[in-house]
Amino acid sequence: MSQIGKIYLVGAGPGDADLLTIKAVKALQQADVILYDALVGEDILSYADANCELVFVGKRDRNHSMPQEDINRLLVNYAKRGFQVVRLKGGDPFIFGRGGEEAEYALSQGVEVVRVPGLSSATSLTGLQGIPLTSRGYSNSFWVITATTRTGDLPEDFKKAAATNATLVVLMGLRKLKLIADFFIRSGKADMPFAVIQNGSLPTEKIALADAQDIVAVSEAQSMEAPAIIVIGSVVRLHPNYWVHQLSHSLNFEQALNQKAS
Amino acid sequence: MSQIGKIYLVGAGPGDADLLTIKAVKALQQADVILYDALVGEDILSYADANCELVFVGKRDRNHSMPQEDINRLLVNYAKRGFQVVRLKGGDPFIFGRGGEEAEYALSQGVEVVRVPGLSSATSLTGLQGIPLTSRGYSNSFWVITATTRTGDLPEDFKKAAATNATLVVLMGLRKLKLIADFFIRSGKADMPFAVIQNGSLPTEKIALADAQDIVAVSEAQSMEAPAIIVIGSVVRLHPNYWVHQLSHSLNFEQALNQKAS
Repeated sequence: MSQIGKIYLVGAGPGDADLLTIKAVKALQQADVILYDALVGEDILSYADANCELVFVGKRDRNHSMPQEDINRLLVNYAKRGFQVVRLKGGDPFIFGRGGEEAEYALSQGVEVVRVPGLSSATSLTGLQGIPLTSRGYSNSFWVITATTRTGDLPEDFKKAAATNATLVVLMGLRKLKLIADFFIRSGKADMPFAVIQNGSLPTEKIALADAQDIVAVSEAQSMEAPAIIVIGSVVRLHPNYWVHQLSHSLNFEQALNQKAS
Repeated sequence: MSQIGKIYLVGAGPGDADLLTIKAVKALQQADVILYDALVGEDILSYADANCELVFVGKRDRNHSMPQEDINRLLVNYAKRGFQVVRLKGGDPFIFGRGGEEAEYALSQGVEVVRVPGLSSATSLTGLQGIPLTSRGYSNSFWVITATTRTGDLPEDFKKAAATNATLVVLMGLRKLKLIADFFIRSGKADMPFAVIQNGSLPTEKIALADAQDIVAVSEAQSMEAPAIIVIGSVVRLHPNYWVHQLSHSLNFEQALNQKAS
């Protein structure tokens, strides 16, 4: 007679191991097996017991990640063999994390699920960088959205979002940065502040700050790479260094004027 | 010669002390003084050192909370006296938390700021309850918004949000629940799924689940009270108990049919 284990759907947060919750640490410490993704670092996995089995199910090099259906079955099989199973994901499992699908399958197979939310990159990297998602007189709502579609164009809801006062946080959008910036420029908002944050919360963190008309050049100059989030809205002006961009912009402008005059 | 302390802007998460981050716990442990709000529980404050000064600056009974300007000055004065100061807020300081204002003031006074994000109620209580904010085939974006305006009507951006496929998370909106539900009903979306979550992540947690046409009655029947969040969108159907509402609704419908027939 073997007891069935539970499946813990655990958010690992944006990267910094100190941004794990206590509940996540406890889940990792008692796990018999941990299935983890590419974005989960060594220092986070080090909370696991020495006897815990670590199973990598993310993308590695040019290989695809394990199909979701296989991950679902693997989780349930481990639990049915009596193991305490942790499914560990970067960010939060229920925000662009497919944790909902895993929970649904586990419950349909009679396995108990414990949900352990984590800090999503979408909502925590901004605050860490000094950009509040909302602030009085700037924005009183925020919209987290992806820029990916099958057609290659921007999603319809993205265009609607851009027409509101909401702070926008765009995930998986770095390849579409030019498309997004152009959309704002064409909408008469060339001065809309943008921030691109790469490797947020880690020692390798980088940020590019500029308005819509400059963000592509500034990002390229700083060699920004995926995975990165894009933040769009007046709150970006509150970043302690946004004035540097504005200053350099006005200097370039004066230079250009001087060149024209000479 | 006294060194200047730092100001740590720390998110306490939605309520459950185990949902603090490790970084937050470390900040609390080394604090000389902690300024905290009404939504921060005893078990969270218990991480403070025995010699740490605890200063309550939130609303108590019928008294107003301390004005923001006074809190700003208090934080800076403590830091300038050489104390390590923690400003501890429910949820995340930079999501409807005025952490941006406090950081801006501290920096303007030459005091260093350390930002420690927390799990926002807006983005973590849904996952805990079994409602993913996004899920394939349901929603691929979410919008966090308040329902409060000076005029008493719903904000314009709220009406725009309701016309998209985004999952909506409404903060400080319980008093406007009827206004919000009626807005969806008038827009031809009487079957839009709603969830109201009160005291999320705490042992006293309650949830009301129903569609737009029933949510007011169901919330009243369950005596839901503020502070609560309202979640609106097709993802609410993924809550493991949503079918109970749907079943009771169709039973009532059959009862009504039977009564009509008899």
